[in-house]
Amino acid sequence: MPKKAKQLDELFHDTLKDIYFAEKKILATLPKMEKAAQSADLKRAFAKHRGETEDHVDRLERVFKAIDKKPQGKTCDAIVGITDEGAEIMKEYKGSPALDAGLLAAAQAVEHYEISRYGTMKTWAEELGLQDAARLLEQTLQEEKKTDETLTQIAESNVNRHAEAAE
Amino acid sequence: MPKKAKQLDELFHDTLKDIYFAEKKILATLPKMEKAAQSADLKRAFAKHRGETEDHVDRLERVFKAIDKKPQGKTCDAIVGITDEGAEIMKEYKGSPALDAGLLAAAQAVEHYEISRYGTMKTWAEELGLQDAARLLEQTLQEEKKTDETLTQIAESNVNRHAEAAE
Repeated sequence: MPKKAKQLDELFHDTLKDIYFAEKKILATLPKMEKAAQSADLKRAFAKHRGETEDHVDRLERVFKAIDKKPQGKTCDAIVGITDEGAEIMKEYKGSPALDAGLLAAAQAVEHYEISRYGTMKTWAEELGLQDAARLLEQTLQEEKKTDETLTQIAESNVNRHAEAAE
Repeated sequence: MPKKAKQLDELFHDTLKDIYFAEKKILATLPKMEKAAQSADLKRAFAKHRGETEDHVDRLERVFKAIDKKPQGKTCDAIVGITDEGAEIMKEYKGSPALDAGLLAAAQAVEHYEISRYGTMKTWAEELGLQDAARLLEQTLQEEKKTDETLTQIAESNVNRHAEAAE
């Protein structure tokens, strides 16, 4: 196999390890966010997304299989930074009516990170002729986009207004 | 002023400092990405976005003014993580035909982080009755979305195919 083609393979594999790490980190973080959330809508959204995230991890394992690799994570500095910011908000805004607004912001930063990663990886899978992998990545991409939309709706309709209820 | 309302103000101000830091970090990173990029399209996209990023910094300074605060950045762990990953790619894939694909992925992760932040802040500005700030944030949000679309087009049409030119 020509060296050049192998290098996009490597980039795909590296990024797969990055998002695998990210999904597992998110899976560990979501129960904390669900517990911290004040509104029932937001708690429900986090609980639902936890179930979906389990599916995302499972799909990534199938993508590893499609390229004959063992599922393996690699520290993803970006998601560590994003979740650290979320943890800081949970601490700094504990008990504040603005907490949910902060949690929503953190969750949407996570979703957008994933949207960019899955979009990129789907394109690469297609270029590499990995049709099954592309289909799995596309499925997750659509779920992440839908989650982001749900969070936007909650942000616009409920939480921020609650944060200002005292005005 | 009631304590509760003030807390959303604080969250807005904290997040403004976060994105101000992020935009300045991006401004420092874009020339490196432009230099590293192999394709003329991608170099051009990074150069154009550098000019826009200068406008984004300027608009953020006007938002600080709108809330009577001095422009001030606060380390944003998320953007540090994302740009660190980009720097790693520039190093690891130097001289590889997959370099541009990696640069595009890093740049799209940056764009999506910004899209989530500007979306959030625009919503908060509206909730806080900061109409001028909301308009400035919306302007930048639209430019970030457009940049992301441009990058997607480049990713789909050129760079990844180049990365596989040897097949």
